[in-house]
Amino acid sequence: VTRLTPERTSEIHAATLELVATRGFASTTMDAIAEHARCSKATLYRQWETKVGLVVDAMQQLKPPPAPLPDTGTLKGDLHALVEGGITLVLESGVLITAILHAASQDTELREALQSRLAVDDERGEVEQLVDRAIARGEISPDPAVLAYLPLVFIAPMVLQPLLAEHKLDADVMNHYLDTTLLPLLGIPAA
Amino acid sequence: VTRLTPERTSEIHAATLELVATRGFASTTMDAIAEHARCSKATLYRQWETKVGLVVDAMQQLKPPPAPLPDTGTLKGDLHALVEGGITLVLESGVLITAILHAASQDTELREALQSRLAVDDERGEVEQLVDRAIARGEISPDPAVLAYLPLVFIAPMVLQPLLAEHKLDADVMNHYLDTTLLPLLGIPAA
Repeated sequence: VTRLTPERTSEIHAATLELVATRGFASTTMDAIAEHARCSKATLYRQWETKVGLVVDAMQQLKPPPAPLPDTGTLKGDLHALVEGGITLVLESGVLITAILHAASQDTELREALQSRLAVDDERGEVEQLVDRAIARGEISPDPAVLAYLPLVFIAPMVLQPLLAEHKLDADVMNHYLDTTLLPLLGIPAA
Repeated sequence: VTRLTPERTSEIHAATLELVATRGFASTTMDAIAEHARCSKATLYRQWETKVGLVVDAMQQLKPPPAPLPDTGTLKGDLHALVEGGITLVLESGVLITAILHAASQDTELREALQSRLAVDDERGEVEQLVDRAIARGEISPDPAVLAYLPLVFIAPMVLQPLLAEHKLDADVMNHYLDTTLLPLLGIPAA
């Protein structure tokens, strides 16, 4: 059996995500992916047992390349730097992110696969690490209950942006949101 | 031209939402709606000029029947009562809500139509009215900046529930979330 090259794998991933973003997960068939990626269905099934496996694998490519966490000396500075480094990618991926959210609410297998392999892990990991450091240096001492909700509060405007009628989301709006919600919840009052 | 009866209109709305939830908006054609609702395409186009018009109209049927706002004497009590009265409908509509979110991020016409006619207006209206009353009776005096983000903070767990790995969302989890995030942002500390 010939293995796919990394380049070919990455083309198939891109073709998969493009179809999911456009048509939605339910209407993206393995046939359509094979056609869009110009390969045979046999090639797809040799590498990925199921459509869910292929989509979850493809989504991992969406993660930005690992970068050092910001370290500005304050939690507010760190969160702003995180937003400025990552929001463009998130906004560009908005259609795909909402397509995957729809798919995850429909398909238990996909939802469980995402929850264990991706989901909000990326954001959660980074935000939580920044908060952990702020706790360690004595900048904040939050109620543990609020910590569990921080990833949700952090990603909400990015995922729900189509519903934000008034303001187009950008780094400034996102940072104002964090200053007004997430940081006060950690005891850092809005300026 | 024969007008559709309210019953027939309502069947067509239901068929439309069922297809959008299952296949996604992009893959829901007027042909498919006509077939699923057992009517002719001409019938659909006589009543609704476009697919967007039909979907937005159908979504308005999702709104719960108008009910009096809770009035328990405290903001916390009122918000909990609101959650208990409405969360079942929201959880049952999760697949459709995420389908619409995907559609709104893809399709400018649908997004603008939703923003002006529905979107989060329903929740926003109720939460904002409850907060206005709490301000009026002197229970809270929040920073105006936070008020703009309350609808987003309120709906986040309901829309993002497929990403919440650990806890299945129900009224208790939702109320704990509100006690830990939304209420403290308004100056009401978690118990």
